[in-house]
Amino acid sequence: MTGRVLRLGMAGGGEGAFIGAIHRMAAALDGDWRLVAGAFSTDEGRNRRSGAQLGLEPQRVYASLDAMIAGELALPVEARIDAVAIVTPNHLHAPMAITALNAGFHVLCEKPMAMGVAEAEAIAQAARDARRHFALAFTYSGYPLVEEARARVARSDFGAIRLVQVEYLQGWLSQPIDSAGNKQAEWRTDPARAGLGGCLGDIGTHAFQLAEHVSGLRVQSVSAALATHVPGRRLDDDVSALLRFDGGARGVLKATQVAAGEENGLKLRIHGERGGLEWAQMEPNTLTLRWLDRPAETLRAGGPGLQQGTTRLLRTPSGHPEGYIEAFANIYRAFGATIRGGEECSFPSLADGLRTMRFIEAVIANAASDQKWTMISPGEKE
Amino acid sequence: MTGRVLRLGMAGGGEGAFIGAIHRMAAALDGDWRLVAGAFSTDEGRNRRSGAQLGLEPQRVYASLDAMIAGELALPVEARIDAVAIVTPNHLHAPMAITALNAGFHVLCEKPMAMGVAEAEAIAQAARDARRHFALAFTYSGYPLVEEARARVARSDFGAIRLVQVEYLQGWLSQPIDSAGNKQAEWRTDPARAGLGGCLGDIGTHAFQLAEHVSGLRVQSVSAALATHVPGRRLDDDVSALLRFDGGARGVLKATQVAAGEENGLKLRIHGERGGLEWAQMEPNTLTLRWLDRPAETLRAGGPGLQQGTTRLLRTPSGHPEGYIEAFANIYRAFGATIRGGEECSFPSLADGLRTMRFIEAVIANAASDQKWTMISPGEKE
Amino acid sequence: MTGRVLRLGMAGGGEGAFIGAIHRMAAALDGDWRLVAGAFSTDEGRNRRSGAQLGLEPQRVYASLDAMIAGELALPVEARIDAVAIVTPNHLHAPMAITALNAGFHVLCEKPMAMGVAEAEAIAQAARDARRHFALAFTYSGYPLVEEARARVARSDFGAIRLVQVEYLQGWLSQPIDSAGNKQAEWRTDPARAGLGGCLGDIGTHAFQLAEHVSGLRVQSVSAALATHVPGRRLDDDVSALLRFDGGARGVLKATQVAAGEENGLKLRIHGERGGLEWAQMEPNTLTLRWLDRPAETLRAGGPGLQQGTTRLLRTPSGHPEGYIEAFANIYRAFGATIRGGEECSFPSLADGLRTMRFIEAVIANAASDQKWTMISPGEKE
Amino acid sequence: MTGRVLRLGMAGGGEGAFIGAIHRMAAALDGDWRLVAGAFSTDEGRNRRSGAQLGLEPQRVYASLDAMIAGELALPVEARIDAVAIVTPNHLHAPMAITALNAGFHVLCEKPMAMGVAEAEAIAQAARDARRHFALAFTYSGYPLVEEARARVARSDFGAIRLVQVEYLQGWLSQPIDSAGNKQAEWRTDPARAGLGGCLGDIGTHAFQLAEHVSGLRVQSVSAALATHVPGRRLDDDVSALLRFDGGARGVLKATQVAAGEENGLKLRIHGERGGLEWAQMEPNTLTLRWLDRPAETLRAGGPGLQQGTTRLLRTPSGHPEGYIEAFANIYRAFGATIRGGEECSFPSLADGLRTMRFIEAVIANAASDQKWTMISPGEKE
Repeated sequence: MTGRVLRLGMAGGGEGAFIGAIHRMAAALDGDWRLVAGAFSTDEGRNRRSGAQLGLEPQRVYASLDAMIAGELALPVEARIDAVAIVTPNHLHAPMAITALNAGFHVLCEKPMAMGVAEAEAIAQAARDARRHFALAFTYSGYPLVEEARARVARSDFGAIRLVQVEYLQGWLSQPIDSAGNKQAEWRTDPARAGLGGCLGDIGTHAFQLAEHVSGLRVQSVSAALATHVPGRRLDDDVSALLRFDGGARGVLKATQVAAGEENGLKLRIHGERGGLEWAQMEPNTLTLRWLDRPAETLRAGGPGLQQGTTRLLRTPSGHPEGYIEAFANIYRAFGATIRGGEECSFPSLADGLRTMRFIEAVIANAASDQKWTMISPGEKE
Repeated sequence: MTGRVLRLGMAGGGEGAFIGAIHRMAAALDGDWRLVAGAFSTDEGRNRRSGAQLGLEPQRVYASLDAMIAGELALPVEARIDAVAIVTPNHLHAPMAITALNAGFHVLCEKPMAMGVAEAEAIAQAARDARRHFALAFTYSGYPLVEEARARVARSDFGAIRLVQVEYLQGWLSQPIDSAGNKQAEWRTDPARAGLGGCLGDIGTHAFQLAEHVSGLRVQSVSAALATHVPGRRLDDDVSALLRFDGGARGVLKATQVAAGEENGLKLRIHGERGGLEWAQMEPNTLTLRWLDRPAETLRAGGPGLQQGTTRLLRTPSGHPEGYIEAFANIYRAFGATIRGGEECSFPSLADGLRTMRFIEAVIANAASDQKWTMISPGEKE
Repeated sequence: MTGRVLRLGMAGGGEGAFIGAIHRMAAALDGDWRLVAGAFSTDEGRNRRSGAQLGLEPQRVYASLDAMIAGELALPVEARIDAVAIVTPNHLHAPMAITALNAGFHVLCEKPMAMGVAEAEAIAQAARDARRHFALAFTYSGYPLVEEARARVARSDFGAIRLVQVEYLQGWLSQPIDSAGNKQAEWRTDPARAGLGGCLGDIGTHAFQLAEHVSGLRVQSVSAALATHVPGRRLDDDVSALLRFDGGARGVLKATQVAAGEENGLKLRIHGERGGLEWAQMEPNTLTLRWLDRPAETLRAGGPGLQQGTTRLLRTPSGHPEGYIEAFANIYRAFGATIRGGEECSFPSLADGLRTMRFIEAVIANAASDQKWTMISPGEKE
Repeated sequence: MTGRVLRLGMAGGGEGAFIGAIHRMAAALDGDWRLVAGAFSTDEGRNRRSGAQLGLEPQRVYASLDAMIAGELALPVEARIDAVAIVTPNHLHAPMAITALNAGFHVLCEKPMAMGVAEAEAIAQAARDARRHFALAFTYSGYPLVEEARARVARSDFGAIRLVQVEYLQGWLSQPIDSAGNKQAEWRTDPARAGLGGCLGDIGTHAFQLAEHVSGLRVQSVSAALATHVPGRRLDDDVSALLRFDGGARGVLKATQVAAGEENGLKLRIHGERGGLEWAQMEPNTLTLRWLDRPAETLRAGGPGLQQGTTRLLRTPSGHPEGYIEAFANIYRAFGATIRGGEECSFPSLADGLRTMRFIEAVIANAASDQKWTMISPGEKE
């Protein structure tokens, strides 16, 4: 930690929720952030219990985001929250983010950014107008060896990039648990709360963001197929897409939540003229580099051969594994450092969010048509 | 070995060739086959030297396939070759196979079967007319754990199949070695000798055959992209395809020869309602089974839990790795047993060949069009 | 978190130290603990800067442990620290722990427990007399799949245990960095600060504790070899030992800090009559079970097949890796829950510490003698 | 193949035997050798059937080794066998080898070489007297990446060697199958046929030979423990040993046949001042090199970075796995090339055999004593 402890308010994430707890651990890990306020649930009892379990002062456990904003604005600046973490279902991201930004708070929001491109653009406009920072929880960007991969591609270790393969395999929606009481599954397969994409919005966006982030290339057009394998489900649970990138690279994106037995298999492979890389989220402390004319190399978190930008993201020496919470904490850390203003920091933000929303819309349009390719608008220079 | 040693003649595969030597080792391994004749090269000296190095009698080293057929037919039946192995570039497969079949010899042919569907159908017709056996070197079908995978899907271990992912990543054509004197690269990228597909015909066919063979499902339609990343190359070096299978399963096929640093990365994953499997050619003695509701299992060649049909394909006890030559030898063994007539045997044959030729033509048609999906004709009941 | 936030004071761990920062992150992760006081360094400036960076109130940054104890005792009970974390070099463990315990504070101490068995016994006596809890940072016990392994052996999944193999391979002391200014290396190879064992005390103890903890068996006698491969080094940097366990199991322990290129390779394998297990710290979210008569199983953090006691140690869903800090946090959590008194909790404590000290002394005695086996006293029923 | 096909006679290896079949496949693979004679079994029917199945002429299926030698000597030199492969239980190795050598035949013998050092020395004397070649089936030396490992150590890639760890884990003797009719288990646990060592002689010798072969170092002294975990078994089924090498390197050797669930886990790790290597038999086409100051490298069979001596041992291109039979065939090939005399070839021979016999005797002596270390005589310059 450098500098003062930042104060966080949380919207959503009451007891039983999954991602709220992850945010809290990620925020706490380095001592940079302290959770001081929350509007955890619209259920009053659940909200109150959540706040109590988290050791919050009862008066800072608010009935709604609006109440939190009003309450915090009533506090002196030096006690007031610095930022709001939005960890609700998707349909609330945009209204909440815009409200918080307009009130002068920084925002760290779950992905996907919004229900559609228009909403995402409204958030972007609000952030620019309010001159506040906006971070998106594309957690996987926070892994040190993802940063190493990005830096290696950027400095042209592999020559011009030709191939990008990204996959994200989960199996937890293989059965109709969404109609059997599983809360996580329920809202993720409900168009009113999740948006137009099911698997597409939930994990397809992660795959897409990772592919563009590490390759440094933009997807120009997409040819896609969506499927819903579980009868009765209202959104896709399986995405396949061919990608054409600026500059001629070709890609394949596969995301599914019905690969029974798979856990959280996000994997990225990129190949250029002289070699390629492979990174898999489930063993995140390893990055494999393969070469046309010399033996493959295994880069390890904390080991020799890493860029300085990678090393700064590590907390433990070589061979002491870091994981998902640490990756997440790197996003909180970068977001915090940026708010404090002392450091040059990078974290997933408006551009990543807008790109992924355009991707969702392009995939849905393409999958519904008999046309081979659908362009993805590059957007304004984001 | 059971029963008499079979006699093999070889067309192609002279000194310096790669696949001819593999065929000879595969044929020799179990003592089932003896190479006794050959027309190894149209270059007379190379032909003669090849025969001598292989210990053949000089009079059975022939100047051409026609000469071999004539010479062998002049021998008494009990000395004559039983079968011809065709290991030439693709454009010679059909004419040679038809000639050999018409003369009453069994044929084991390299893949892809022919230059197009029409040629492949002519071979099939010739085999049926001559009542002779025809085997295709879809070597990967010969791996014991591929058979295990097939049997597991067939007996419905995973429930109805939803997802098929197959990939075949090579990197050896990342540079323009085809215009720099590499013989193997040269003919494989020459439309006159390789056919309409480059990477598509060479390894895309393996991926396709493996996917259909193990899943037991047929691809109904395909949406594909072909790319040629190396300037000046005349055929594709990179294939990406979305697949729709009979019964609703969805698939992705990726085959490339420009994934710099990759070796021979053929990998198959299949998922059904209750679990899935993963097999990778580079570590072929392992088959991973994943389950929705219990821990993943690792099946090992020679270990517990294998079907009897798998065990019969093994030569060594558990933990003693078998490889590519052994897999190939399993095809020679099954082909031999079928010729001898004593055993119920399975090996890749006419149906596999015809399906892959239809796949090649469908991919090429689709990749050239702006239409999303192209049907693959199921063909007559093959 | 359940119940009130506990208050931690830290002895040692000033800026630049490695393990102090890990303790702070581990303590912070779940919100159970708050660092409120410290005596980080005998260097006044370093001490002050460390406290400031950590956001402590200046009056609770103390010049020494004694000062911290005096200062904290002067505070009202409800503000006072609950426990002291001792993260100094080894020679200070015992005096500091005894002082803190005698003053009525709980203690979480780095390993090895002390400079010898006598000191360790004195700590144990102090803890018993003061009726205070004592935890030892045998971090690897905190990994969820180590708990799973322990539970599997305990419920006799593998039958009677026959073989225990434990190894801990590091390479960071391959060169004489201890005489070249590396602080971490310096004190660890200095008998006055590290004790009688170098590698033996630093990581050999981890290996030994893990082997006894998971197997549930006690080492009865040891036959050992110590080596110092780097010239000029004053303590061993390489340990090899044969182990005989109660009940007839046989073991091998290998610990080294001169396996150049190795990171933090702690690995445990245990085999019984019917099967065995393998766990490796560098990929800690996997536990492999092998069986005599059925396929190997791969247990995964968050996946199916885990015991309830394992699941309680996890913070993320299946496929989201947890690492070293999370394992450490599990020890802080169990220690905290025990202090609060509401939960039945297990963490490495006096018995583990005493056993490892007896192990160190037995190895050193045996390695110096020409006798094959040296008994390890079981000690009083600990 | 270069030069004439060599003729092989086999002693032992009748139907149902394991290792005889492996020898035949290994000999056949490259076309260098042809099996033309055999004395497969003392059971007349089994002997005759074995010969018939292998397609031998009935008059060259002999009732005994003596009969084979007499019969073959009666043939003209150009028809006569060149060498005898001895694939019987251990107690017959020495008498048969000496008989064959004395009669002027080369010998390829299974390991361990003999029942004791004295017998092994008698074989060595016979070979020298007869000026015939003697090869030992230390198969693992035949793996291409074992040769790469040896060459890397020899040219000092890792600096002076400090650590050697070798292990060989099998589980197939976890239950008392030796007293339940399993032939392979039966003779291997019978002192009259196996010799003084059980697991020690059967696989401990492989581990020892591999360690000395690759490290290029000799074990100077050993401290060992033997165990028999299965009640009623007459020989050891579990070996643990500490090793001291010439020049100061330290080693650990572990070999066991009661690691339930393990297959054929032979693994070697060697570390020097600057880095180390790891090779595992079950994935033999990979050799991992780790370095103090740069990323780990993965060498692959057929991939970049291999020595020429390694490449010559390969039959397939990169990514096409080779296995145990191919490794074995490399020994037959080198043995054959040496007999033909045209090539400088290396294969396991008298020196390897004598060293392993001395190792067996030293381990047995040490394990029975209360003395820490037992020297292994270096023997005459072998």
